[in-house]
Amino acid sequence: MNGISMYAASVPVFVRQIENLSRILVKAESFAGERNIAAETIMNYRLAPDMLPFSRQVQIVSDSSKGAAARLTGKDIPRYEDNEKTFAELQQRLEKTRGFLAGLDKKDFEGADNRSIELKVGSETLTFDGMTYLLHFALPNFYFHYTTAYDILRHVGLGIGKRDFLGRT
Amino acid sequence: MNGISMYAASVPVFVRQIENLSRILVKAESFAGERNIAAETIMNYRLAPDMLPFSRQVQIVSDSSKGAAARLTGKDIPRYEDNEKTFAELQQRLEKTRGFLAGLDKKDFEGADNRSIELKVGSETLTFDGMTYLLHFALPNFYFHYTTAYDILRHVGLGIGKRDFLGRT
Repeated sequence: MNGISMYAASVPVFVRQIENLSRILVKAESFAGERNIAAETIMNYRLAPDMLPFSRQVQIVSDSSKGAAARLTGKDIPRYEDNEKTFAELQQRLEKTRGFLAGLDKKDFEGADNRSIELKVGSETLTFDGMTYLLHFALPNFYFHYTTAYDILRHVGLGIGKRDFLGRT
Repeated sequence: MNGISMYAASVPVFVRQIENLSRILVKAESFAGERNIAAETIMNYRLAPDMLPFSRQVQIVSDSSKGAAARLTGKDIPRYEDNEKTFAELQQRLEKTRGFLAGLDKKDFEGADNRSIELKVGSETLTFDGMTYLLHFALPNFYFHYTTAYDILRHVGLGIGKRDFLGRT
């Protein structure tokens, strides 16, 4: 084959990183238990006062992946309540997201590279073709929140490394 | 067209984010000047004692992108000295990297999806086909270091936002 399908560039990428994040959350929950750090403290931890806290970073890993996959395939975006307050609830959120992504078929992505995508960001409406949206908006945004969730956990002292982030190859 | 070329999934993505990072460095340098923060303090800033400092994060944004593009096209990887200690020197590093990437041609990437990639990581040798390498190793690694550089700057107080990270669409 020559080139990358829109499916291959999105669904397996999102699923893999969500699975990596899920394994990192297991380690974070153990770490918090061992150090007597309340889960709430980690949920609310921020790298700067005007950055989003840890739980929101994880929620947006979910939102940015399910939103991208739904928009590219013309499906309704699954809506979740953003009420997760524990590691277990964040795990459920990631698992629901993974399930939605895993339920999509390669065929759902036919023509996704040329599909017109409209995105409301604040008061602005951004318009992309599907390929530009995926490569220059959805993937960087997804990785931004995944990395920032990881960086918050490293900052509070969790001993994880690049291999946890990338997953086993 | 149907699907994404290996060129489109790599070179323009790397170039765009390197240009975004370059603009962020301009803001970081001004910020450091206004607050009387020595450039060295920012260069050496880490989110955790066992994470790499800011200057290394930026160097690895360079390394991960030039390395990926060179491996996928069978070219020699440009080697730089990793001796940058100022904002101006990091800007030059990014500009050299951008120049190398911009000099690559779409034709250089023919067959890159199936090219066999070997990568030494510590004492291990990882083997990938080109597509798996790009999607599941090179891009996540690139975004990891770009986001962590951004997160360090946010943590020390620089007032930038998602729009600086993603760039103008």
